[in-house]
Amino acid sequence: MNPVSQPATVADVAAAAGVSRQTVSNALNRPEIVKPATLDRVRAAVEELGYRPHASARRLRTRQSSTLGVRLPPVHGISGAVLDRFLHALVERADERGMRILLFTATDLDDELAHMERLVEGSDVDGFVLTSTAHGDPRAAWLGERDVPFVTFGRPWGVPDMDDAPHPWVDVDGRAGLREATAGLVARGRRRIGFLGWPSPSGQGDERRLGWRDALAAAGLDDGAVPLTCEDDVTAAASAVTRAVDDGAAFDAVVCASDTLALGARFALGASVPVVGYDDTPVAEAVGISSVEQPLDAAASAAVELLMGSGRSVLPATTGHRLLAPRVVWRD
Amino acid sequence: MNPVSQPATVADVAAAAGVSRQTVSNALNRPEIVKPATLDRVRAAVEELGYRPHASARRLRTRQSSTLGVRLPPVHGISGAVLDRFLHALVERADERGMRILLFTATDLDDELAHMERLVEGSDVDGFVLTSTAHGDPRAAWLGERDVPFVTFGRPWGVPDMDDAPHPWVDVDGRAGLREATAGLVARGRRRIGFLGWPSPSGQGDERRLGWRDALAAAGLDDGAVPLTCEDDVTAAASAVTRAVDDGAAFDAVVCASDTLALGARFALGASVPVVGYDDTPVAEAVGISSVEQPLDAAASAAVELLMGSGRSVLPATTGHRLLAPRVVWRD
Repeated sequence: MNPVSQPATVADVAAAAGVSRQTVSNALNRPEIVKPATLDRVRAAVEELGYRPHASARRLRTRQSSTLGVRLPPVHGISGAVLDRFLHALVERADERGMRILLFTATDLDDELAHMERLVEGSDVDGFVLTSTAHGDPRAAWLGERDVPFVTFGRPWGVPDMDDAPHPWVDVDGRAGLREATAGLVARGRRRIGFLGWPSPSGQGDERRLGWRDALAAAGLDDGAVPLTCEDDVTAAASAVTRAVDDGAAFDAVVCASDTLALGARFALGASVPVVGYDDTPVAEAVGISSVEQPLDAAASAAVELLMGSGRSVLPATTGHRLLAPRVVWRD
Repeated sequence: MNPVSQPATVADVAAAAGVSRQTVSNALNRPEIVKPATLDRVRAAVEELGYRPHASARRLRTRQSSTLGVRLPPVHGISGAVLDRFLHALVERADERGMRILLFTATDLDDELAHMERLVEGSDVDGFVLTSTAHGDPRAAWLGERDVPFVTFGRPWGVPDMDDAPHPWVDVDGRAGLREATAGLVARGRRRIGFLGWPSPSGQGDERRLGWRDALAAAGLDDGAVPLTCEDDVTAAASAVTRAVDDGAAFDAVVCASDTLALGARFALGASVPVVGYDDTPVAEAVGISSVEQPLDAAASAAVELLMGSGRSVLPATTGHRLLAPRVVWRD
């Protein structure tokens, strides 16, 4: 360790080793062109002085920050854990490619754009991973205009052809997940399988409802099946299911657009009627409710691949995409 | 915007404005010493060329990264949400002071130390916020030896005098939280208040148990009260409470060391016996269980203050600490 408070510089190392600064730089960056004896002297000086090649110098040289910006999503309810798990996987996958994750928070969309502008203007990031998407997302247009590479976790809802979207995206096929959940209940002998979701239009919610419909139709069970809807709240969900039962619905199973809704359905129906949620949150695990699990590690890998290809730098924006299949975690 | 792919440099700006590079630098960093007409010319050139002052250059100049390293904790169960909320608050409080949060993950303590070494050697961070602590924590010693500033969220369990600990720390007074929860139940007319916690020794768990004891003693209700213990698991908790009831315990309320334990107690006792958990997780809110809420925003503020004082740079390590009082969120 260098005992003085001022960090050692390349010049200090050069002086201590009796070589030029260029030779120190070569020894650090292109050791193969430096004579072994010289290399040993430089390395001994580096060691003795506690010299640390400065990351900012490296980044300045390459004009790259090796950093991806991610907005830490607002903390909300049971399913917040999903984005936390995605973020965890993203940090790991990015780290494997020498990329770091810089977090920021924002109070709303305008504030998020202001943060993004500051990060882009300061060359603090090479690109962004957006962890949510909405119809006509202004962030996508903003980033596109500035040629800033980014990928979204979530489909660009509202574009005419998602296979030819204006930016790369990764998403999980909720329709396939609910189809598997509903078909699994049919295979377990259930016939009156209800669906509890959110009011339309809801990109994710509508997809999940279609998966339930697909499986009912395939089993010839879709006659008169009407989906229930309510906001994403346990009490509202319990009320919606109780009202439907009071009105004569005789569910022998319910599939839901979220674990929050599934918990409400469980409270309304008791443990004898199987309920399947979505997101496989800690709550579903703790209460023992089956749930559709998103492949978050695969989603994070795909996001990094779409941004970086097979190399170690962020690429100009591509338009590739990946729609990943989830799986049902059965707990019955 | 600069239409060519190579970013504009200070030299480009200087040439376009017809001034020296030093004048460009002055215009950007000390505009008060530059003549207004010159300032206008430089600003027009900056605008025209789309020049972006490079964050890495700024950091290199100051030899500071303006970045704090935080290990993203492993994802685990119901109470994982607490560290996520702390992290969220930390990003916001750090941002207010011009500091960014760099995330890393680690598979175990050795891996965490290896990551920390890489970040320190590369001058990627100015300091660390450690989000967990354990008896004889090797990270504290490692950072202390290298004079790297850090603060822990969690007390340095095992040191003889925590008021004179070798590093700054922030923690929440779980003993006060359980004392308030238990006293609140006494005030609501409950007399046979059980405690469900983790096996000793457990720094946090033992503190929380003491809070329950404090309140029982103050109310003259501690005759023969025996704490229950089990691992932090819903099913194990339900079994522990059911066994105690089968053995003759007649609880009219139970306070718990975690929301996971509280959920198990709720399953064992039903909704008619009030249960108080700890951490006020989304699960407690969804199920309607009272819970002790940690002041995570205040904890994040305190962590940033201990690391940075009132300025905008990370300080050499201090030894201050803050023990914050939680509050009970009643849901009955």
